Amino acid sequence: MTELTERVRTFAQEREWEQFHTPKNLAMALAGEVGELLAELQWLTPEQSAAVMADEEIGPRVRAEIGDVTIYLTRLADVLGIDLVEAALDKLEDSGRRYTVEAARNSAVKIKGHHPPGA
Amino acid sequence: MTELTERVRTFAQEREWEQFHTPKNLAMALAGEVGELLAELQWLTPEQSAAVMADEEIGPRVRAEIGDVTIYLTRLADVLGIDLVEAALDKLEDSGRRYTVEAARNSAVKIKGHHPPGA
Amino acid sequence: MTELTERVRTFAQEREWEQFHTPKNLAMALAGEVGELLAELQWLTPEQSAAVMADEEIGPRVRAEIGDVTIYLTRLADVLGIDLVEAALDKLEDSGRRYTVEAARNSAVKIKGHHPPGA
Amino acid sequence: MTELTERVRTFAQEREWEQFHTPKNLAMALAGEVGELLAELQWLTPEQSAAVMADEEIGPRVRAEIGDVTIYLTRLADVLGIDLVEAALDKLEDSGRRYTVEAARNSAVKIKGHHPPGA
Repeated sequence: MTELTERVRTFAQEREWEQFHTPKNLAMALAGEVGELLAELQWLTPEQSAAVMADEEIGPRVRAEIGDVTIYLTRLADVLGIDLVEAALDKLEDSGRRYTVEAARNSAVKIKGHHPPGA
Repeated sequence: MTELTERVRTFAQEREWEQFHTPKNLAMALAGEVGELLAELQWLTPEQSAAVMADEEIGPRVRAEIGDVTIYLTRLADVLGIDLVEAALDKLEDSGRRYTVEAARNSAVKIKGHHPPGA
Repeated sequence: MTELTERVRTFAQEREWEQFHTPKNLAMALAGEVGELLAELQWLTPEQSAAVMADEEIGPRVRAEIGDVTIYLTRLADVLGIDLVEAALDKLEDSGRRYTVEAARNSAVKIKGHHPPGA
Repeated sequence: MTELTERVRTFAQEREWEQFHTPKNLAMALAGEVGELLAELQWLTPEQSAAVMADEEIGPRVRAEIGDVTIYLTRLADVLGIDLVEAALDKLEDSGRRYTVEAARNSAVKIKGHHPPGA
């Protein structure tokens, strides 16, 4: 991850793109790339989406979009001075306290496919 | 990153949320979290966004949203069988061929703050 | 639609929010609201999503999110000087030329549930 | 608006795309189009974004994206049985109660360009 952060930073510096890389602009770019990812999956059934990486045409496009999303997320975190993995682990711990295993299971059983609380 | 992937996977398994975690659903959840991140930055000036982590109120919220985005991106990549860092490095190499350093610099100078091609 | 545009404009003026309503900021706010809409639908099956308005709890929330999305889209179009309905009709005409009825039907039959080209 | 709703509905019916147009899929398509709109504005300064419609190259693209967003929003509302204008007016009334003119103005003055509450 650290290597990726540095590679992305160098990429931007070499092109003199740092002037454009405010958190606001990078968050928009991140959202734009997530939009492209959604576009690849939007008409698929849940089952088709689960098998999408086996599709010779769509699979590589999904991987490339995931790559773009990761690039912008890494760059945004770098500019903000945030460690992505630490931020995620902290949030996971926080979510673990809010959605205990027992409560989540009961809820998953009860609603049977109804929407569970977000992670 | 590997540790994070496993922690997120265990988190979902313990709560029996795997049934909900199709690529399609996870991409939507990722987009939803990116939307929350945008909401934190939407009314800020570029300068305010650059200093957002120093804000006692908004800074921690931005970090938590970045954590949520990372969690869903990690989970989505795990379900798809994609290595996030490899996908990003491959895409970066590809972008490097399309936007050479020289062309990007010339363009950045010429447009002076106009929108550059995406990374 | 014209009445809505004026009501939203007055709403912003009365609160002295015009200073925040640049196209860039409003596009972010629009995306944020779309993110909230996605969050309501993300864990639902296609069938559950089709019946969502009959759900006493989620139905009104979906309607409120649709309202928020419409408010920001209307405000953004007003600030840009774009007539929403005209822009949509022009785009529809353009899409009609690119995806003829015959080609679209053949493709829908052939792929049987595979993703069609976007509208 | 009613005419647009019918035109979009006919467009989908003629192409036999109704099978793809669940609320879930349409919300994803809406988000994808909003992502394309963000991509047009992401590197612009606030000032550049305010003048974007005067740009011969970007202006028409922004208008086309606004058209796409409106098409999918209209289609989604049609499928859900929601009247877009009514939903927006109801939400506006609700927001008016939560953010009174007086409180919003005081807050706008106090924070001087800091983020106001959402509409």
